[in-house]
Amino acid sequence: MLLSKYPEDKRLLIEDALTNFFPPTGNYPELLYKAIRYSLLSGGKRFRPILVLATAEIFGMNPIDVIPVACAIECVHTYSLIHDDLPAIDDDNIRRGKPTCHIAFGEDMAILAGDGLFAEAFYLIAKRQKTDNPSKIVHVIEELSEASGPRGMVGGQVLDILSSGKKIDLNTLKFIHIHKTGRLIRASCRIGAILAGASAKELKAVSNYAEHLGLAFQITDDILDVIGKTASLGKEPGSDERKNKATFPSIFGLEHSKELAKKAADDAKEALKDIDKDTSPLASLADFVFERDK
Amino acid sequence: MLLSKYPEDKRLLIEDALTNFFPPTGNYPELLYKAIRYSLLSGGKRFRPILVLATAEIFGMNPIDVIPVACAIECVHTYSLIHDDLPAIDDDNIRRGKPTCHIAFGEDMAILAGDGLFAEAFYLIAKRQKTDNPSKIVHVIEELSEASGPRGMVGGQVLDILSSGKKIDLNTLKFIHIHKTGRLIRASCRIGAILAGASAKELKAVSNYAEHLGLAFQITDDILDVIGKTASLGKEPGSDERKNKATFPSIFGLEHSKELAKKAADDAKEALKDIDKDTSPLASLADFVFERDK
Repeated sequence: MLLSKYPEDKRLLIEDALTNFFPPTGNYPELLYKAIRYSLLSGGKRFRPILVLATAEIFGMNPIDVIPVACAIECVHTYSLIHDDLPAIDDDNIRRGKPTCHIAFGEDMAILAGDGLFAEAFYLIAKRQKTDNPSKIVHVIEELSEASGPRGMVGGQVLDILSSGKKIDLNTLKFIHIHKTGRLIRASCRIGAILAGASAKELKAVSNYAEHLGLAFQITDDILDVIGKTASLGKEPGSDERKNKATFPSIFGLEHSKELAKKAADDAKEALKDIDKDTSPLASLADFVFERDK
Repeated sequence: MLLSKYPEDKRLLIEDALTNFFPPTGNYPELLYKAIRYSLLSGGKRFRPILVLATAEIFGMNPIDVIPVACAIECVHTYSLIHDDLPAIDDDNIRRGKPTCHIAFGEDMAILAGDGLFAEAFYLIAKRQKTDNPSKIVHVIEELSEASGPRGMVGGQVLDILSSGKKIDLNTLKFIHIHKTGRLIRASCRIGAILAGASAKELKAVSNYAEHLGLAFQITDDILDVIGKTASLGKEPGSDERKNKATFPSIFGLEHSKELAKKAADDAKEALKDIDKDTSPLASLADFVFERDK
């Protein structure tokens, strides 16, 4: 994996902030916070919060100033992984190279750690995110709740479950990906832009970038599931195939999928041309996504 | 059960609004919305949203104008019931006289219907709740997310699980109740008051009322679990005892528990004296809670 300096610098900021928001002691019931910290502080890529920081930055805001919202989005992402891994859903035992939350803490704690993280996401935004205009906070919450709910992540996950073991067409596969992972990636970009006061035209270009980026991200994830090793992938490779899940490689083959990922990353960078700012942080993140499978 | 006209009128408003927010057709994936509607529109008391309406009303706001927030709180309440009923948590088969969500739709759909409802709650507030001041919306979201998260409902549920089958003292029982049900009841009252522009002093009195009310509500619930019948209770009575859960009757006996419920309802009404408005709607709701076991 090639790590450019930009995402790595920002990842460290997020790690620090998450540890501060969820300190190791002083919270009750302890077991709940232990389960939350176990999953939240387990070394993810922090891709979504980095997108928040980068997008705010290109529109002139100090990335430090959007950290509460960025961490909130990582809370939502982590909660969704905990619930996805549950026996009743994907039934995964390994995540980020460690036993999944329900293996380590039991199903009941995993369900509630996920629920707790989702609540904390909105609390972080409402309580901790400073702004020059509270309407922006309300707008951010609208974006995040829609992206993570039935018209976003939850809807995509439901269709993924309903499609499992069935032969599905490309449109269904795209619906699943756009909703299950794409909406939260798009919201991360839009939220950074909203807080930094981007115009409607700029917000549209950001959304366009984010949609291509989300596609590149998902195709790359599918590819990694085929060619990855447990160590670098952090989960057992081949799990999509074992679960009979439709993926880009299963529909297009591995080589063509790689071309599609490259094209989506290029399209993402192309979309940045509609923004009259230095968009290099976002361009580097598109490269970062595509180069994950190297 | 003695139903005064006030809660019944308001309940009908809430039923209509919930049905409008979650219409029977036009949403995708259909099965997800079917599971959400199944649980949300199954005839609950709508106690929490009625509290929002009543509190807003006593501070001079038209109850109609806080309906989105009131419905959001019912979404949070319903989501918590769906997740509590799951096999890994309380493992309940009947709720409001019908099979629980996971019995009717499977565990995966129940987990995701709950997750979806929680997201929709924040969306309803951010997108649909009108206000003269967006800071109030941010404040409302802070209250709701804290009340429903690890320092509220989720924390109480975790301690309830950890205490199950153990002999617990009164302080632990109170912690469980205050967090598992009390915080959301308090938030419902505070949120109505916040939207209607109550002063800090008034907000404190409202919180005081709500804390006593929450206690009266929970003791009455515990009593109903002992003496209730499935038909009026909507679930199987005696489930607390079967699960070896600590309750007020198990610690204080039935008769003394009834006295404690009466005292808590009286204390709630007493707290209203610090509010220099016509607080009769809130007083009638305290009677309504206490008289549920009649």
